[in-house]
Amino acid sequence: MKRIHFNEVVTRDGFQMEPEFVPTDDKVALVDALGECGYAKIEVTSFTSPRAIPMLRDAEEVMGRIRRVPGVEYSVLVPNLRGAERAMESRADELNLVMSTSETHNRANLRMSREQSFAGLAEVIRTVAGRVPVNVSLSTCFGCPMEGEVALSEVLRWAARFADLGVRGLTICDTTGMAHPAQVGDMVEALQKQFAALQLTLHFHNTRGMGLANVLAAAQGGITRFDGSLGGLGGCPYAPGASGNIASEDAIHMLDAMGYDTGIDFTRLLAIARDLPRIVGHTVPGQVAKAGRITDLHPAPAA
Amino acid sequence: MKRIHFNEVVTRDGFQMEPEFVPTDDKVALVDALGECGYAKIEVTSFTSPRAIPMLRDAEEVMGRIRRVPGVEYSVLVPNLRGAERAMESRADELNLVMSTSETHNRANLRMSREQSFAGLAEVIRTVAGRVPVNVSLSTCFGCPMEGEVALSEVLRWAARFADLGVRGLTICDTTGMAHPAQVGDMVEALQKQFAALQLTLHFHNTRGMGLANVLAAAQGGITRFDGSLGGLGGCPYAPGASGNIASEDAIHMLDAMGYDTGIDFTRLLAIARDLPRIVGHTVPGQVAKAGRITDLHPAPAA
Repeated sequence: MKRIHFNEVVTRDGFQMEPEFVPTDDKVALVDALGECGYAKIEVTSFTSPRAIPMLRDAEEVMGRIRRVPGVEYSVLVPNLRGAERAMESRADELNLVMSTSETHNRANLRMSREQSFAGLAEVIRTVAGRVPVNVSLSTCFGCPMEGEVALSEVLRWAARFADLGVRGLTICDTTGMAHPAQVGDMVEALQKQFAALQLTLHFHNTRGMGLANVLAAAQGGITRFDGSLGGLGGCPYAPGASGNIASEDAIHMLDAMGYDTGIDFTRLLAIARDLPRIVGHTVPGQVAKAGRITDLHPAPAA
Repeated sequence: MKRIHFNEVVTRDGFQMEPEFVPTDDKVALVDALGECGYAKIEVTSFTSPRAIPMLRDAEEVMGRIRRVPGVEYSVLVPNLRGAERAMESRADELNLVMSTSETHNRANLRMSREQSFAGLAEVIRTVAGRVPVNVSLSTCFGCPMEGEVALSEVLRWAARFADLGVRGLTICDTTGMAHPAQVGDMVEALQKQFAALQLTLHFHNTRGMGLANVLAAAQGGITRFDGSLGGLGGCPYAPGASGNIASEDAIHMLDAMGYDTGIDFTRLLAIARDLPRIVGHTVPGQVAKAGRITDLHPAPAA
């Protein structure tokens, strides 16, 4: 029973993309409920400018009101030094920094070059050193929707620059669902060879239906940490109508069935997943919440 | 470049479940278009009673009007001797017979015991021997929605009974999307050991999001034949709102990306997949038709 650690990103990565603001009360209640499910980590919110991401403008209030479950890390996304200060005032357990391995995507998404992003994030890492662990999420590691292929060597080069700064973990993101299982296999082999001492997390999207196949390939390759977004919320502006992040509950359901130890109380998680459409006001892509677990049986029809 | 053979089942397995009758002209046009895509096989229709499956009541007409592409096998589902006669009059290239490995599912679905099903199908196989190849599709091989677990030994037992009758191929069906990749790995290892001389096809559903992960596990285990349903049509009455069959185009897109040789002209297939919602009058679960291929790039935003 290999242990798998899940990081739930729905309240950050999912809600930031929602068309309607999710009320603060609902965010707090959801994080509190998820905290009881056995997640290793919850990425609660983002300390960005309220103008940049208005849907997460209540970051301080959410972090101040959630009930922290011992053993769960409450992480936050942080774009810069100001965000890092706000995050530490809010007693975040981890700062998650982000930049793209694709120059074009980084400029489109963060409005600066990769070198500018790196310099800013390096300043954050040096400033918070010894006070709070840092994770770096590298976007578009399996391809850029504008540039196309991103070389594995380029991903490793940026990963190495952050590893040299002493980060605790790296999240390798398939930001727009371009990864396929063979590529994932090559990626995780290279990552584990070069960064064995770091916490390595894989972040997949289901944009082209390959989300759980990529989780499988990564787990087969020895990866034990995954991001997931409840209901499969979140997504990519380049693929309207397509699925977003992998649905946490679908990935956990698969790994549980295969005999991995995800640490998740799935009955509890499924109940929360089934309540999600009420919170966001629309159906969500996750499948297990609709179909039920493999083990949920149906009565035979009357003869 | 390992060769993978795809069997497209949308006009049979997909359309039989549609709420509205798909016009015969549309069925013929779709089979004709699919025939140009490089499929190894197309399961065109079903020679069942029009009362049992009214949506496929035009089986003779469809088989009579389709344009047959050399190299493509045009298979049909056949429930009994009468169906087999109709199928051979329609010059089907293969008869596909079906029964469940779960007693409860067989009774619910076919209104007879497994022994009764086997006896009837055995009669068909003996009658058509030497005139047309026979494939047998075994339902619920990875679990029954009413009974639960179906033992691997039980699947192998039914498979062996049909192998002994001289069938050309066996399709191992995850009828209601209960398979997980570890189970698939065990299944395909056992099947290939015991039935190396038969054409072994795997038929997956995406009911719980694991469809392509199961395709991956089967392909890793050496399976080279898959059923798929364009758009992910078809499905399971026990999981309302959930996905149905794996979408052929999503599975083919993944295997193509991984370097398998599916033989499919994907540009042509994608255009057909994108026209499917018009034919059936509703959106369909397939993802690649919405999101585009991995290689479909987007313009960078103006600076």
